Amino acid sequence: MIDLRSDTLTRPTDAMRRAMATAEVGDDVYGEDPTVARLEERVAGLFGHEAALFMPTGSMANVLAVRSVVAVGQEVLCEASAHIARAELGAHGAYTGLTMRTWIHPRGQVDLTTIESMHAPDMGPFFVPTAAISVENTHNFAGGAVLPLQDLRDLRELATGVGARIHMDGARIWNAHVATGTPLAEYGAVADVMAVCLSKGLGAPVGSLMIGSADAIAEARVWRKRMGGGMRQVGILAAAGLHALDHHVDRLAEDHTHARLLAEACGVDPDGVDTNVVVVPRPDAVEFVSAARAEGVLLSAVGPTTVRMVTHLDVSRDDTEKAAAVLGRLV
Amino acid sequence: MIDLRSDTLTRPTDAMRRAMATAEVGDDVYGEDPTVARLEERVAGLFGHEAALFMPTGSMANVLAVRSVVAVGQEVLCEASAHIARAELGAHGAYTGLTMRTWIHPRGQVDLTTIESMHAPDMGPFFVPTAAISVENTHNFAGGAVLPLQDLRDLRELATGVGARIHMDGARIWNAHVATGTPLAEYGAVADVMAVCLSKGLGAPVGSLMIGSADAIAEARVWRKRMGGGMRQVGILAAAGLHALDHHVDRLAEDHTHARLLAEACGVDPDGVDTNVVVVPRPDAVEFVSAARAEGVLLSAVGPTTVRMVTHLDVSRDDTEKAAAVLGRLV
Amino acid sequence: MIDLRSDTLTRPTDAMRRAMATAEVGDDVYGEDPTVARLEERVAGLFGHEAALFMPTGSMANVLAVRSVVAVGQEVLCEASAHIARAELGAHGAYTGLTMRTWIHPRGQVDLTTIESMHAPDMGPFFVPTAAISVENTHNFAGGAVLPLQDLRDLRELATGVGARIHMDGARIWNAHVATGTPLAEYGAVADVMAVCLSKGLGAPVGSLMIGSADAIAEARVWRKRMGGGMRQVGILAAAGLHALDHHVDRLAEDHTHARLLAEACGVDPDGVDTNVVVVPRPDAVEFVSAARAEGVLLSAVGPTTVRMVTHLDVSRDDTEKAAAVLGRLV
Amino acid sequence: MIDLRSDTLTRPTDAMRRAMATAEVGDDVYGEDPTVARLEERVAGLFGHEAALFMPTGSMANVLAVRSVVAVGQEVLCEASAHIARAELGAHGAYTGLTMRTWIHPRGQVDLTTIESMHAPDMGPFFVPTAAISVENTHNFAGGAVLPLQDLRDLRELATGVGARIHMDGARIWNAHVATGTPLAEYGAVADVMAVCLSKGLGAPVGSLMIGSADAIAEARVWRKRMGGGMRQVGILAAAGLHALDHHVDRLAEDHTHARLLAEACGVDPDGVDTNVVVVPRPDAVEFVSAARAEGVLLSAVGPTTVRMVTHLDVSRDDTEKAAAVLGRLV
Repeated sequence: MIDLRSDTLTRPTDAMRRAMATAEVGDDVYGEDPTVARLEERVAGLFGHEAALFMPTGSMANVLAVRSVVAVGQEVLCEASAHIARAELGAHGAYTGLTMRTWIHPRGQVDLTTIESMHAPDMGPFFVPTAAISVENTHNFAGGAVLPLQDLRDLRELATGVGARIHMDGARIWNAHVATGTPLAEYGAVADVMAVCLSKGLGAPVGSLMIGSADAIAEARVWRKRMGGGMRQVGILAAAGLHALDHHVDRLAEDHTHARLLAEACGVDPDGVDTNVVVVPRPDAVEFVSAARAEGVLLSAVGPTTVRMVTHLDVSRDDTEKAAAVLGRLV
Repeated sequence: MIDLRSDTLTRPTDAMRRAMATAEVGDDVYGEDPTVARLEERVAGLFGHEAALFMPTGSMANVLAVRSVVAVGQEVLCEASAHIARAELGAHGAYTGLTMRTWIHPRGQVDLTTIESMHAPDMGPFFVPTAAISVENTHNFAGGAVLPLQDLRDLRELATGVGARIHMDGARIWNAHVATGTPLAEYGAVADVMAVCLSKGLGAPVGSLMIGSADAIAEARVWRKRMGGGMRQVGILAAAGLHALDHHVDRLAEDHTHARLLAEACGVDPDGVDTNVVVVPRPDAVEFVSAARAEGVLLSAVGPTTVRMVTHLDVSRDDTEKAAAVLGRLV
Repeated sequence: MIDLRSDTLTRPTDAMRRAMATAEVGDDVYGEDPTVARLEERVAGLFGHEAALFMPTGSMANVLAVRSVVAVGQEVLCEASAHIARAELGAHGAYTGLTMRTWIHPRGQVDLTTIESMHAPDMGPFFVPTAAISVENTHNFAGGAVLPLQDLRDLRELATGVGARIHMDGARIWNAHVATGTPLAEYGAVADVMAVCLSKGLGAPVGSLMIGSADAIAEARVWRKRMGGGMRQVGILAAAGLHALDHHVDRLAEDHTHARLLAEACGVDPDGVDTNVVVVPRPDAVEFVSAARAEGVLLSAVGPTTVRMVTHLDVSRDDTEKAAAVLGRLV
Repeated sequence: MIDLRSDTLTRPTDAMRRAMATAEVGDDVYGEDPTVARLEERVAGLFGHEAALFMPTGSMANVLAVRSVVAVGQEVLCEASAHIARAELGAHGAYTGLTMRTWIHPRGQVDLTTIESMHAPDMGPFFVPTAAISVENTHNFAGGAVLPLQDLRDLRELATGVGARIHMDGARIWNAHVATGTPLAEYGAVADVMAVCLSKGLGAPVGSLMIGSADAIAEARVWRKRMGGGMRQVGILAAAGLHALDHHVDRLAEDHTHARLLAEACGVDPDGVDTNVVVVPRPDAVEFVSAARAEGVLLSAVGPTTVRMVTHLDVSRDDTEKAAAVLGRLV
């Protein structure tokens, strides 16, 4: 089976397993795990922020990151197919109690004019003020689309002007970084708070981080425990993350090449494939996924007329070519 | 002072006060207030629904009405300037924990194509399914705009086709009814659940109703008590509502005429004024409001560049003409 | 029918209805209702606090009062049969998200030794600190029991010593005041925040107040609106409350006398009846209530083996004697 | 340093690390991790329940386990120093919105008479009914006290009789099992839903399980993802848990022996030490902890007058004797 359902499916390599097996550990609830501390410090530094916090999942990282900039009675604006709106089971409403409004962009991009018109100032205790704007880079349901740095900088300027904060869901920021050559710190500079993920393209088995100011991270540490995310000898998992940062970032370029190959095979313009996600419009999404499965290729239907395929660490060039051949036949 | 800030400002008339003073009452938490029972039955009947429930405010009516069709982990779609999104202090997130996504229409209208593209089917426990679509008729922040019945019927057909419910925020449905001649039951027929208000144009001091199926209302009765809305001898207030239904519906036509006069005075096209709300774009909204106040006319700034004026029971033809003269000078 | 189910059943007198019919009103969401302002100022003054806020119900008053002193992640201690624990449909957990622990006292009293042993200091972000202690005076489910002032003062001293706040559910504080002669301000002096009710023994149709510091009340005003309690021309209801304060406080002594008569008739020691609530242990509570109903006397089963009867404004001496005769026969 | 602060501090042994390094894994969000599936099936089987679900922490396991038997508007009863009340940062209120009432027992035991008197039947939509009773076995803050099986069986009978469910916080159920010889399935038989922990005495770095019916577990799987606990290649962690079940259960007897030695050294009656936790009353808890630290022994102050020490996998007989000598001197 060639598994293109998601880059969350990556399994740790032997080298990563060795890193985990020899990791120095301590009780992270007591703040005493040296490996997780090293990972947190390193990731904060990569993005030019003060601090970072290991999280069991990207969902928890997003929930607590958004929570750090949006209180009950305030709102966050995001694109209508953002992961925080569509794919976290409603956790931001259910657990944080915030309000969300959305702008719509077919490629998940920043639409500055619309955002500006939506922004709600604080008009006193009758209205819901906009506390934050959330962007997702790369944007999963928009086919791994990259948000151009200039757009983010323009948004930063707008947000600063109106006193709003920026949350960046950077679950796949590594892919944006590799695809565009933009330094991670440039992405970090436009966001007040971020969530990044180790267990997608980077191939770690478990783990995400929230990144932000020292104060926001200190507060998030308490909320992480309240939310059931205060794990103990986390160094085992953090070691996989450190290994991934050393060895699995640059290789994402291969995934991007593979994705373009798959797009071509499916009759999708590869120039619309920025990174490792290919979205194929199919009126028969569920049936198409079944047909591909029958031929040894696993895809996802992420909507009734939308098929998604994702390349990753466990999909080799050879796998890609085989899958492309199958998909080409089916299309 | 001529007070055009809101139609919530109406004070009970002498006749309404007499109706309240002589109302038969009982303890409504025990379900024993005959006057509120009569009001609930009458309002349910007007909209062709099974049951209705008195609420202390339109906010609580909306929160519990939306709650009855959208659970935690599900979403409601609404227009981006809907009252439920912008003006209830985030209660739907804070207290119900739901997710909201928005489409954008400058006049708060149904945008069927966009709604259809946003609708999220239930794809299993990873995504947030669309449980309901909410419309506001008339639409407050879109300047009291009426939603045409045909658009609502098209939305009903779409919603039924995909298994979504429709919530109608009918705080000012009476204005839509009077402005268009559409029977209330026709509006009721397109909605699964509604909220309507007695304390705006209708002139009652307090009170709104949630309207829906007998089951939804029975459940809402419990949630109303949990939310702190289970009042006792409610008949006093319900009597005002019954009086308003008898005497203050048809006269809304006067408010609409007055609103057109004010629009003209402000240089706004009166054909864009469907009912009793006039929205005037002003780069200097706050200053304009101050200047009008200095001349005895009270307006609202509902955004940094948006002035709103609302006609109502306590604004006579004479008041309107005086206010129009003031505003004409200021514009 | 002689209705002893609750003192919430009282209907407004003719004089109270006249007060409501002539009340001066304004839009209280805008802070412009002079009658409610007068009521809030008067009630705050009676208890020696800075400010008060009208609420549609005692439940909302309690929820927002407790919320003002207990945040998410903190706890409130209360007696195990307190109204906030047993009879507000779980609103404090559902809407405020707080933690509650309870001590147990058969008469709902302050148990200083136990409270002291339960009190949890703030030991850092692993434990739930005690933010407030809540007392109910009189205590409804403990049969209208009065909490002695000295006990409250001792609790005040304990609370101050450990940095905890005191919430007093004073829904029936008027009964405690009349039964003991303790000035209301003495009760007010032991509490940081209170809720008091106008629609129980005082006979107003609707209304409660939260009482506290100016800051707490300002914040509660916003939360009241979020919770759906921001009503408009509230002066109609506030006028009933002002009338009740003028005319219905002292007469509570009659209710207390009546309650003792009923207790005697039921074979309950009248010395255990502090105010207007009589709790009668009956193995057959539901059947007993039915039997009394058949004879024209309405009671409540508040537990499978507990019958409750409550005297109030609409139960005259004559009614009481008739009910006592019926109950005496049944017992 | 001899670290007696908590048994959460245990570090994985070399053999456990090898088991993790060679674990077969898959994406558990897709339900495809064979190792976690094996662990879940095994643990469910040990307790005689239908299913189990891996959780990142014991807090999340407790929150979702209690949630599965207590809805908003319902209550759970527990002992006043239960971990769910005192040490999960208020998550049950904050995230589930439930109500909690407590009975008080100095050793955290079942107090059947009190529980029976507290139990609230479902009396209709005015009161908060008791949905579940929670017990903690062993009871952490009561010094690792074991709840006798007969008491649990009596509670089971009571609960079944009144229609309440039983939640067992079995974070340290392994210690109760080893200390008393009671089969795990006997404990499982008295509970409707349980939480058990692998990362305390059992020595796994991360991981707990919720245990219950197939339906409850299926629903909890969705809520776990909503709460941010849906991790990916969980087999790495599950392998540690399986290893712990094979190798670290029986050896808990050593921890219990060590705990008695420490108790004796501190002048605490060792017969009151059921398992691996020793609670020492000290008026100067914080200072005592500091003094011990200065001599190389780490303890916890779990209250202003309470010192706690916990024996575990990383505390050898030799360590224990050294610590006992230090503590003996200090006492």
